Amino acid sequence: MTNELSGRRVAILATDGVERMELEQPRGALHGAGAETEVLSLHTGDISARQSDIDPAGSIPVDKKVAEASVADYDALVLPGGTMNPDQLRTDDEAVAFVREFIHSGKPVATICHGPWTLVEADVLRGRRLTSWPSIRTDLRNAGAEVVDEEVVVDRGLISSRGPDDLPAFCAAIVEEFARIPQAS
Amino acid sequence: MTNELSGRRVAILATDGVERMELEQPRGALHGAGAETEVLSLHTGDISARQSDIDPAGSIPVDKKVAEASVADYDALVLPGGTMNPDQLRTDDEAVAFVREFIHSGKPVATICHGPWTLVEADVLRGRRLTSWPSIRTDLRNAGAEVVDEEVVVDRGLISSRGPDDLPAFCAAIVEEFARIPQAS
Repeated sequence: MTNELSGRRVAILATDGVERMELEQPRGALHGAGAETEVLSLHTGDISARQSDIDPAGSIPVDKKVAEASVADYDALVLPGGTMNPDQLRTDDEAVAFVREFIHSGKPVATICHGPWTLVEADVLRGRRLTSWPSIRTDLRNAGAEVVDEEVVVDRGLISSRGPDDLPAFCAAIVEEFARIPQAS
Repeated sequence: MTNELSGRRVAILATDGVERMELEQPRGALHGAGAETEVLSLHTGDISARQSDIDPAGSIPVDKKVAEASVADYDALVLPGGTMNPDQLRTDDEAVAFVREFIHSGKPVATICHGPWTLVEADVLRGRRLTSWPSIRTDLRNAGAEVVDEEVVVDRGLISSRGPDDLPAFCAAIVEEFARIPQAS
């Protein structure tokens, strides 16, 4: 069967500095499986994308401000990386509250690279197992997580990968895990 | 079922000037379904990507020169757009021969935006039905194609879309169509 995510709506929360391929490839994976995606951000208009943090990599249109989004409208959440992106998201109370509510709802959340910083800020990592970009692993451990160095980790609806090199496995994992949940009515 | 393209190998043929999201999103869709992808190009190293043709959008590593690639090693082919990308591919005899052989093999070929120019050069569009970016439709008709203005067109293994706005439908169509073919041994 194809289109196993038909009818599912997935939020992608990101802001300026997002690592472009960590947004585009998972988005493509979701589209390939028939899901709809929306980019939520701190501001409307376009967000500025990056490659390896340093090089400009175009822009990505924002569908809605996260402050105006409701967790109830989505079946799953993706948190891409890029150092600057979550470094800003974590300072925004509404972005952090959205992520916290998403985790508490039990709906799946996928994150890659520096993306988990926003989960640290939301204080939702106690007792959770995940992976990340190497530089932030101490922050994740200090927030109560068990951190491992694996291509992709799935822990009760929390899907995580280390960085761009893991994108093939990450894309396959999010389709597989997002297909497990019952569709929201 | 997920991973419906597990074990499939897909070639993505592109060069400098490729419209980044037309490469990354289909690549993500293929990874999401479990396929392996390789970027083939006119040269090794990185190719320079663009957004809306004009804005720099980072680079993409090349896996292999198309001159050294064999159609037998792949189950399907993707031809992204970006005006400058196929404008160069079509001047390279080996790229054109690779595309021609792919079409003649009967394996599926997916193309979007300006991508079909390389199919014009390969003279493989007589009697075929497809869509494209508006500016090149006369070239496709003059090459013998029936051209329509639809989000996604599937004609006997040839999958086509008009441009970036069609990516959700294009991604879903390539997963669906590439899953139909028997896997190469």
